[in-house]
Amino acid sequence: MKRNLALLTDFYELTMSNGYFKDNRHNQVAVFDVFFRSIPDDGGYAIFAGLESIIEYIKNLTFDKESIEFLRNKKIFDEGFLTYLENFKFTSDVYAIKEGTPIFPNEPLMVIKGPIIECQLIETFVLLSINHQSLIATKASRIVREAKGRPVFEFGARRAHSYDAANLGARSAYISGVTGTSNTLADFMYGIPSSGTMAHSYVQSFPSEYEAFKSYALNYPDNCLLLVDTYDTLHEGIPNAIRIHNEVLKPMGKYLKGIRIDSGDLAYLSKKVRALLDEAGLTETKITVSNSLDEFIIRDLIVHQEAEIDAFGVGERLITARSEAVFGGVFKLSAIEENGQIVPKIKISDNVAKTTIPGFKQLYRFYDENDMAIADVITLHNEEIDPSKPYTLFDPNHPWKQKVVEKYRVEKLLVPIFEKGKLVYELPSIEAIRKHKEINFNKLWKEVIRLKFPHEYYVDLSQDLWDLRRALVVKHKH
Amino acid sequence: MKRNLALLTDFYELTMSNGYFKDNRHNQVAVFDVFFRSIPDDGGYAIFAGLESIIEYIKNLTFDKESIEFLRNKKIFDEGFLTYLENFKFTSDVYAIKEGTPIFPNEPLMVIKGPIIECQLIETFVLLSINHQSLIATKASRIVREAKGRPVFEFGARRAHSYDAANLGARSAYISGVTGTSNTLADFMYGIPSSGTMAHSYVQSFPSEYEAFKSYALNYPDNCLLLVDTYDTLHEGIPNAIRIHNEVLKPMGKYLKGIRIDSGDLAYLSKKVRALLDEAGLTETKITVSNSLDEFIIRDLIVHQEAEIDAFGVGERLITARSEAVFGGVFKLSAIEENGQIVPKIKISDNVAKTTIPGFKQLYRFYDENDMAIADVITLHNEEIDPSKPYTLFDPNHPWKQKVVEKYRVEKLLVPIFEKGKLVYELPSIEAIRKHKEINFNKLWKEVIRLKFPHEYYVDLSQDLWDLRRALVVKHKH
Repeated sequence: MKRNLALLTDFYELTMSNGYFKDNRHNQVAVFDVFFRSIPDDGGYAIFAGLESIIEYIKNLTFDKESIEFLRNKKIFDEGFLTYLENFKFTSDVYAIKEGTPIFPNEPLMVIKGPIIECQLIETFVLLSINHQSLIATKASRIVREAKGRPVFEFGARRAHSYDAANLGARSAYISGVTGTSNTLADFMYGIPSSGTMAHSYVQSFPSEYEAFKSYALNYPDNCLLLVDTYDTLHEGIPNAIRIHNEVLKPMGKYLKGIRIDSGDLAYLSKKVRALLDEAGLTETKITVSNSLDEFIIRDLIVHQEAEIDAFGVGERLITARSEAVFGGVFKLSAIEENGQIVPKIKISDNVAKTTIPGFKQLYRFYDENDMAIADVITLHNEEIDPSKPYTLFDPNHPWKQKVVEKYRVEKLLVPIFEKGKLVYELPSIEAIRKHKEINFNKLWKEVIRLKFPHEYYVDLSQDLWDLRRALVVKHKH
Repeated sequence: MKRNLALLTDFYELTMSNGYFKDNRHNQVAVFDVFFRSIPDDGGYAIFAGLESIIEYIKNLTFDKESIEFLRNKKIFDEGFLTYLENFKFTSDVYAIKEGTPIFPNEPLMVIKGPIIECQLIETFVLLSINHQSLIATKASRIVREAKGRPVFEFGARRAHSYDAANLGARSAYISGVTGTSNTLADFMYGIPSSGTMAHSYVQSFPSEYEAFKSYALNYPDNCLLLVDTYDTLHEGIPNAIRIHNEVLKPMGKYLKGIRIDSGDLAYLSKKVRALLDEAGLTETKITVSNSLDEFIIRDLIVHQEAEIDAFGVGERLITARSEAVFGGVFKLSAIEENGQIVPKIKISDNVAKTTIPGFKQLYRFYDENDMAIADVITLHNEEIDPSKPYTLFDPNHPWKQKVVEKYRVEKLLVPIFEKGKLVYELPSIEAIRKHKEINFNKLWKEVIRLKFPHEYYVDLSQDLWDLRRALVVKHKH
């Protein structure tokens, strides 16, 4: 089945584009922002991901003859528009936050400035990439953190929302610190370390559990990790595993690397298993657990139940972000060229917080002396902040709440990706993105990253942007 | 980025397969079942989907040189095994339920019988296809039903869990009765009717809403559907839409086809909008609404708030099945050849209901005189049911609960798909699958399909299968 991602676009992007074209307005320059309004799971932060997919898509964006013919058959598109698509060339400027960066509501994650027809044609793909991948990166970050340094393996391929969700989900999870994935294709495509050992079916397919374990040990003496819960973890699985160590591995000079428990009460079983293994001298054998885990269950196991667990396999609840399966990124017009001038646009809402932030913008992150993130400030695109001078931060909804900062440094979070359609951004390796996530996540206060009722990280507006927004609100109300 | 679906498999499928190969047990015939244990959202039924993807995958399953080389570099796979993969040929028997059929917990949705190595290699892909697509088909079925005949359009591409989720999600939703999709690629690939009109950005990009509407009306006079909530639905959007009808469309002999509301209180606004349109003589203009809808909100709007709505656009909550984003299909060994005999296998659990159903099986659906579905009965593969004789249905967990049925007909739900690796099933068109869903959904009692606290549909075992299961349980306990 042929898959041409150029057509992975909402049909209204095409009807609108055709309209712009027929009105001869398609080259009118517009500015669009991508942002989101609330953090999944009432968390304090999200992790940005999806940029690499968008870059690949834009680089390869062409409408082939089959697609053009398909559109022609709809009998609503202008021939000139179809010719435009046939010769499509991306010429816009794109700015984006780097993958792996912590992000917060209402700030621009990506800014696209170029002919309005181009912005419109890429909208759906841009949103779906960011929405899916940031969703999973955010969820994975929560899970990895609660594991407190214990490795977390992504096991969710079989419950993913189809193929790309398995692959790109594994990539997003890896950015946020999982140790590896069960999905071999994610390894092949993105270099996410894949691993795996055995399922219950392997054990069941042998006349006895012992024979299954023995086969596995002989085939994988260097990496012998046995699934012990097919029949009875404490009375059969562990005794058989210990026998395998003593009778098969030890004589070869090898060691039972680990066991996995996939059912039952993981706190109780892990403690009992640890005691049985230790008693048999297998103090180095690691205990991995799996079975519908998420950040809350992992925290409970570790903090409240003192479970003896060395590693976690996390499946469906990570790969689908089950607790909140939607990341609500939106794509909104923020400015448009009129008579050669970029004119900021606003969409007013009765709810002040829902009124959009107009104009062509930049995003700064402020860091204190200890290099911890203090606040993000949305500015106009060309505003420069001079860290040698004090800066007044203020709450955009309650501007009397102010704070003057000194001894800070700032970083522009929106970096150029495409300039006039040319890729100017060097794609980092997956390992570099993962490192970037770790470093930047560690710059967040613990108050911001806690699972429940986090402290709200400050996302402010610069005085100039605040003034502009206020002026547009006032103008619209009169 | 190259995508080879052969590697979309959990790494443990490969370590197990390599183990079978090295033990020279890889051609041992096994039987695996796919089934699920609980219905999403505590519903009374699910809709089966994902079969076509699995058929395409199996037909094209080859391991190319790059994949083999990738695996070789892992340095744990036997050269003989890699050669086996290089020459891979699927030779198994596959039985499955037809797409669009209502399905229930614990019954076999798919049965694979063949060399254990083949069953293992396809497990991950089979599960992820069924789990994703049945999840969305089930969710869509709930939403479409609550719309009570009003068209539902699938609008979720931008919130889907990546590209395939958008495409296959639209296909699954279409099977369950949505009228169309916003996703152009789902139309191109699967023939799901795509449609769309305009976003807020189109309106904002013009100096005024009226000018935007006028451009749209002139470009699409035959299908003029206007988004009226960019500024103020009742005071600007609707008056402008009426002006467009009177000043632009009517003089051309055209009619304002519809308006769409995407924010605000949809019940209140739709009633006000209907009144305004009717007052202006636009009684044929249809009202479409969108904005975070699901089956519960739609039911409330229609049943309790008497909203004046003609069509629904449903996005994120359908395409992600947000209320329950996981469909828990599993893949379990149910029999294995030992000394040339197919020996049923069971996995015992302390929880009776979780103990697997052993053996190579078939699934029958019973219909009463009015052709309504009464019960499903899981049987041994070769059992035949003679509808000229009374049949005793009984609850497998409470076998004293019995019911003798007469005047019934039965249907075998598991049909042959592959025989010895050869495709013997003729793939139905998407329209035929959609029709099949509608017909079979209508054979379910209303008690079974209600949203909350549905009546539990009977899934029983035949006497022979019940006896076999009981014998194996007893054997294992001693």
